[in-house]
Amino acid sequence: MLNGKIIGRVLGILLILEGICMITVIPVSLHYAEGDLLPVSVSAIITLAVGVLMSQVFRDTDSTIGKREGYLIVTGSWLVFSLFGSFPFIIGNTIPSYTDAFFETMSGFTTTGASILTDIESMPHGLLYWRSMTQWLGGMGIIVLSLAILPVLKIGSMQLFSAEVPGPTPDKLHPKIRETAKRLWLIYLGFTLAEAVLLKLGGLSFFDSICHSFTTMATGGYSTKTASIGAFNTPYIQYVIIVFMVIAGTNFSLAYFGLHGRIKKIITNEEFLFYISFLLVFIAGVAAVLHFSHGHALEESFRNAAFQVVSIVTTTGYATADYCSWGPFLVLVIFILMFTGGSAGSTGGGIKMVRLLLLAKNSRMELRRLIHPNAVIPVRLNHKAVPQNILYNVLAFIVFYFLIAGVSAMVISAMGYDLSTSFSAVAASLGNIGPGLGEVGPTMNYAHFPAFGKWFLSFLMLLGRLELFTVLVLFTKWYYKN
Amino acid sequence: MLNGKIIGRVLGILLILEGICMITVIPVSLHYAEGDLLPVSVSAIITLAVGVLMSQVFRDTDSTIGKREGYLIVTGSWLVFSLFGSFPFIIGNTIPSYTDAFFETMSGFTTTGASILTDIESMPHGLLYWRSMTQWLGGMGIIVLSLAILPVLKIGSMQLFSAEVPGPTPDKLHPKIRETAKRLWLIYLGFTLAEAVLLKLGGLSFFDSICHSFTTMATGGYSTKTASIGAFNTPYIQYVIIVFMVIAGTNFSLAYFGLHGRIKKIITNEEFLFYISFLLVFIAGVAAVLHFSHGHALEESFRNAAFQVVSIVTTTGYATADYCSWGPFLVLVIFILMFTGGSAGSTGGGIKMVRLLLLAKNSRMELRRLIHPNAVIPVRLNHKAVPQNILYNVLAFIVFYFLIAGVSAMVISAMGYDLSTSFSAVAASLGNIGPGLGEVGPTMNYAHFPAFGKWFLSFLMLLGRLELFTVLVLFTKWYYKN
Repeated sequence: MLNGKIIGRVLGILLILEGICMITVIPVSLHYAEGDLLPVSVSAIITLAVGVLMSQVFRDTDSTIGKREGYLIVTGSWLVFSLFGSFPFIIGNTIPSYTDAFFETMSGFTTTGASILTDIESMPHGLLYWRSMTQWLGGMGIIVLSLAILPVLKIGSMQLFSAEVPGPTPDKLHPKIRETAKRLWLIYLGFTLAEAVLLKLGGLSFFDSICHSFTTMATGGYSTKTASIGAFNTPYIQYVIIVFMVIAGTNFSLAYFGLHGRIKKIITNEEFLFYISFLLVFIAGVAAVLHFSHGHALEESFRNAAFQVVSIVTTTGYATADYCSWGPFLVLVIFILMFTGGSAGSTGGGIKMVRLLLLAKNSRMELRRLIHPNAVIPVRLNHKAVPQNILYNVLAFIVFYFLIAGVSAMVISAMGYDLSTSFSAVAASLGNIGPGLGEVGPTMNYAHFPAFGKWFLSFLMLLGRLELFTVLVLFTKWYYKN
Repeated sequence: MLNGKIIGRVLGILLILEGICMITVIPVSLHYAEGDLLPVSVSAIITLAVGVLMSQVFRDTDSTIGKREGYLIVTGSWLVFSLFGSFPFIIGNTIPSYTDAFFETMSGFTTTGASILTDIESMPHGLLYWRSMTQWLGGMGIIVLSLAILPVLKIGSMQLFSAEVPGPTPDKLHPKIRETAKRLWLIYLGFTLAEAVLLKLGGLSFFDSICHSFTTMATGGYSTKTASIGAFNTPYIQYVIIVFMVIAGTNFSLAYFGLHGRIKKIITNEEFLFYISFLLVFIAGVAAVLHFSHGHALEESFRNAAFQVVSIVTTTGYATADYCSWGPFLVLVIFILMFTGGSAGSTGGGIKMVRLLLLAKNSRMELRRLIHPNAVIPVRLNHKAVPQNILYNVLAFIVFYFLIAGVSAMVISAMGYDLSTSFSAVAASLGNIGPGLGEVGPTMNYAHFPAFGKWFLSFLMLLGRLELFTVLVLFTKWYYKN
């Protein structure tokens, strides 16, 4: 039997946290006085009230959280956060359609950054602040999810490093999660503050600095400007954001090691080295094409290449340039980069670097096995042999990812979208990136999708954010059988 | 040490066979008297001479064929056949560019059907006959390769059925291959004759009947008309070709069982049932869209849907309609079907049905394992448990396939082609289909590619046709080390 009460209690407690976060929006609404004070306050009250009610009703319950409960709590949290998180937009009619408000909020909490807003500057500052905060909170959720919860459920990319971040045993789940979360959230907060200060020094307003550091560290990509980072056309700002996107796409436990002076842990981490090399190769390649083939200035080529490559690979989704105008070759490169992703244990989404690295290593081994079929040559990661079943899971994840992308692209194209738009909208949603190509390119938005399309893409964001299996398992008969 | 002499001897014998096949073109050239008699005769003489020379020079050699020799013989045969097979086109300047002649011949022997010809009707009949025959010979090669040779090398989709077609043990390779080949080639020949008779009865010329039955049974797709099968606008002809494309995409060993009255073997074969259901579902879906959404007549919708779906899935590549004009949804469906393929042990290319079936079964098991991680629930195919390492190989193959497709699409787009053209040209070459989308759509051809593009796509045809690993292994250092 599923322990429904404990699920209710956990979701209640999370709602209280969400309500408290909403309260922090009130000063912003007060300061700018743009009519969003009432919607924000009412939303906070409703959220808190429901949260308190739920946590009280299910107070004295058996507190065993098994695997089944775990799956439902994880998926449920994102759903419930998005449901209540959309209230500030819908109460007061700032976003008149509920579908749009839910899409925007789910896109926030999943750190996707796909938007239905056509004129972002016309939004009240309080709501823009809340919109950025949904991503920042989503990022916090992902850190604790990927580094503490999913390893217990034996899914997600961090299981590949089980030796690096000792996975909590089920009976010690609570203290371990709390401890891990506390440490990593401090780091997350620290980077966010650091970036905000650097952005402020670069001339951004206090408001823009906070909002953008929220959405950079979450690899979310929501901006307070319709033109995204292109609105701040100073190289300094763009370089700062590039650096922090790279950090946000790095495993947060490496930052923890770094702060403890264990630099060797970082520079010998194979996923980190692969991630950095991967970025450098693609930045160099794109910059070379922009400079030599398109005739852009050298520094500008490098900066735009670095910005877009890092933004797509880390699944942030900010834009400084319309890469759709970069010619067919670079458009295709960007499209392919949409199927990469940040590091495991970062806030980045997508397939993730460690899976691509293991894929490359495994492919090499497959070829070797053709000549030496009986040789036992394990694939190694950070000098440890990777068990065969883990490699198998990596391949299965990647195949699942493409299978879902293919079927979903058919669904989107049935609404009349062309091949590039359909595939890239799916890749950008499933990979939690945000912008895609064609009608969802960096200068466009998602407003034109029919309602079903928006709900469908919201579902893909959730699916991708929770590493597919967490959500998919809820649709199997085995989940409900004893 | 690689036994180079035996490789030379086998290739020499194969060249003699190719030369003999070229001689059979002479009567056609004589009959139509269109100036191709000399090129064909000279090519036949050169091919025979080189073949006899090679087989004599390497006469008294150690006849051990190990795995390494096997890989090189397989890849070498297709290369050597294409090299000599292009002579009839290049001698006499019918196809003036050697790149084009090689592309056309490799596209023939790999049963791809991608063409650089812009006006097929202007070609001499003798050369069109040879062009169709390259595909038919390629199909014969694939039957013996997939059902007899690759299982010994432990690659290819037929290893998944090792219990169905008892794999020859290495020491008994020769008699086994000969026996298997003889039986299956008779079936192949029988179907070819049957189709030719049915096409002749439908009003096609004797010449067109033979050429099209050659290229149908090979799932090749070369036509003697620029408009492909669209040139024969009678439903009867199209239905005949649909039926024989379906047969050509079926495992030939099932036809063998059928001829021996073992119908149960066929109707209980899971890959066959999956293949037929898969075709029916997509035919029904496409027909419904054509009829209800595009307003085409019912029978015409069904026929065009059946023709195009079967043509793409079996990797034949004939066209009766320009599917690029069917709107974004059907274009995307066709694109996705380019990543399917015929059955194992058929002449069809691509990823193949059995791999997709195992992928589906395995995905289901993966989800089940999330809830029951320790339950041992094997994936079954035809009531037999599929070993874990075979499933692993299936996933690795599919991932490799997409990896190669992604990287190759980048190469093609670097020549200035858009996303749809780049990806579909790669899918159509790697999957041995022929036509793709955009600038390589069914009403277009491959003439406009730069020389490098044509060589690159020729390589992809070879790679896909030989199930990736056979060719890739030659590029690894392990192949050359002892």
